[in-house]
Amino acid sequence: GVRFDPREHQHLRYNPLRDSWVLVSAHRMKRPWAGQVEKPPEEHIPRYDPRNPLCPGNTRANGEVNPNYDSTFVFGNDFPALEPDAPDPSLDQHPLFQSKPARGVCKVMCFHPWSDVTLPLMKRQEVVKVIDKWAELVEELGATYPWVQIFENKGEMMGCSNPHPHCQVWASNFLPNEPALSDRCQRAYYQKHGEPLLLQYAKQEAEKKERIVVESQDWLVVVPYWATWPYQTLLLPRRHVLRINELTTKEREGLADIMKRLLTKYDNLFEVSFPYSMGWHGAPTGTYSKEDNSHWQLHAHYYPPLLRSATVKKFMVGYEMLAQEQRDLTPEQAAKKLRNLPEEHYKTREN
Amino acid sequence: GVRFDPREHQHLRYNPLRDSWVLVSAHRMKRPWAGQVEKPPEEHIPRYDPRNPLCPGNTRANGEVNPNYDSTFVFGNDFPALEPDAPDPSLDQHPLFQSKPARGVCKVMCFHPWSDVTLPLMKRQEVVKVIDKWAELVEELGATYPWVQIFENKGEMMGCSNPHPHCQVWASNFLPNEPALSDRCQRAYYQKHGEPLLLQYAKQEAEKKERIVVESQDWLVVVPYWATWPYQTLLLPRRHVLRINELTTKEREGLADIMKRLLTKYDNLFEVSFPYSMGWHGAPTGTYSKEDNSHWQLHAHYYPPLLRSATVKKFMVGYEMLAQEQRDLTPEQAAKKLRNLPEEHYKTREN
Ligand SMILES: O=P(O)(O)O[C@H]1O[C@H](CO)[C@@H](O)[C@H](O)[C@H]1O
Ligand SMILES: O=P(O)(O)O[C@H]1O[C@H](CO)[C@@H](O)[C@H](O)[C@H]1O
Repeated sequence: GVRFDPREHQHLRYNPLRDSWVLVSAHRMKRPWAGQVEKPPEEHIPRYDPRNPLCPGNTRANGEVNPNYDSTFVFGNDFPALEPDAPDPSLDQHPLFQSKPARGVCKVMCFHPWSDVTLPLMKRQEVVKVIDKWAELVEELGATYPWVQIFENKGEMMGCSNPHPHCQVWASNFLPNEPALSDRCQRAYYQKHGEPLLLQYAKQEAEKKERIVVESQDWLVVVPYWATWPYQTLLLPRRHVLRINELTTKEREGLADIMKRLLTKYDNLFEVSFPYSMGWHGAPTGTYSKEDNSHWQLHAHYYPPLLRSATVKKFMVGYEMLAQEQRDLTPEQAAKKLRNLPEEHYKTREN
Repeated sequence: GVRFDPREHQHLRYNPLRDSWVLVSAHRMKRPWAGQVEKPPEEHIPRYDPRNPLCPGNTRANGEVNPNYDSTFVFGNDFPALEPDAPDPSLDQHPLFQSKPARGVCKVMCFHPWSDVTLPLMKRQEVVKVIDKWAELVEELGATYPWVQIFENKGEMMGCSNPHPHCQVWASNFLPNEPALSDRCQRAYYQKHGEPLLLQYAKQEAEKKERIVVESQDWLVVVPYWATWPYQTLLLPRRHVLRINELTTKEREGLADIMKRLLTKYDNLFEVSFPYSMGWHGAPTGTYSKEDNSHWQLHAHYYPPLLRSATVKKFMVGYEMLAQEQRDLTPEQAAKKLRNLPEEHYKTREN
């Protein structure tokens, strides 16, 4: 018979962090695209906009005035999905109508006082300040809340409604679905194999090399073997680290470097400010901190929507929503493309 | 303390079909929206377009000429994600690099010879023809394939690249993630409660009434208690039915009616041809047909992306991708809104 070629022959790949499968049909990239095109990301953003509620010195929706901050700046989301004091829902005993209390806080964190920079264009020490603040928030909110979700929605395509560089931090009194699933998978793997899943994975990928995007002494970025989004990546420490606040100064500097390198490549791929949603997963906090979390390994997921160009994204729709995720190029093809891109940002090259 | 009000106080709701939770934060609808707006759905589509590969008599990408069909028309997708004869992937034994063979077929099914109609604007008997063809395909492909996924991506917003009314049918040699999860959940419920989950659910909703959108003698449409998309609905038969091909003639006519009523309300909500992805889930087929599938109940899911208007959708991004799905209005609010809309289509009212 014909010899199997992952670029030509569809197959399933297993995602051990979510206990699910992805359909890889790389030959689909050949089809022409006649569907929706997106507005390309805005490239010219003013450094300071008097109407932007995230800029230093400006007034927010609730009437509060931002300080003239010169590094990061954290404040409470004016329209939080989680509030600390919501009353408990009434208990409906029927198993098909179950509800649970949800309490928490939602914070917004500006990365920089200027609206016209992004992480790859910021200085290394400015990115270290962002990492330090992430670590601080995990420590502070994680003292009581079992889960602290740091995430960044970048670009209008990813529902971001403000161009100022920022992320969000939502802490909750419950372990959300995704980390609960990841916790279960990592625990089962650890029990069976005696080593943390993602520690073993990083070692394997460091040897195999074909899915590496960027690497350094302490960090590794790969397009995971089971990636669903076209240019999805996984950022991993090489050492066993449970939470972001455990990183040493040297590791934080290395993290700033590798983030800048990855995000520069992302921007260079289609020569636009690359949209994505990203977020950190680490061992749960709050009362979970007292338990053994050796199965956990800190990591960040990057989920970028673009597939073909700056204006054509991958639609995760009918088949993906109702049956299974499907991708149109192999993770190895995506990794190679990213790996071969220059590490100098197209915006600084132009100058 | 304050009395719990689901419209004011965030809480979690359990989805028994996916064994997961959704965060309901209805007070979030109050925030102003300054983010991305979508191009509104195209309202003026020519009945016949000589360049549209789905129209009767036209030539498709592979050189085949469509017949002059006057009802439904089924053909093989020219760029299929699943092909019947892909070779097996090489077996990598490492548990973190698992792959599996994937084989199947991808079909496209036109609903009608005209490009300027949609299901709610088609005649009842024309919709019955669509249902008959769905049933036929499930029977035919289900004879060998364990899963036959019927799905419709409607609107450019949902990655649909052709305005001609059509759906897709992808059959696979594996049970995809979503039906596998649903199978597991329905089985566990049946074993514990002695009645199919969705049969019990339909009875409860028929009594409670607050989440009903439309109902008839044989069918029920609700915004499920655990809905994640703003106007998500679940279409259920009242009788225990495993698969779509088991529906009687009378039930198919009733289904055509209730689909037309639901989709008319959807179009009337923002007075546009409402985008969505929808699909059918029924008991697995192929070799699964020989097993006991009493825990299964046929149903259709509708996942529409719009939240605030014809041009503002719900973004399922950072928190949703990395932590947990979150919604901005209660399912009861969504159901009430849909329920109170007229059952005459805004396009026929205008005339
Ligand atoms: O099959 P189409 O219409 O070419 O493609 C559409 O539906 C598929 C199945 O949901 C998705 O994988 C694609 O991303 C989407 O654009
Ligand atoms: O918080 P924002 O920026 O207002 O809103 C954005 O992120 C949230 C968390 O991922 C999503 O629920 C919203 O749909 C999205 O528009």
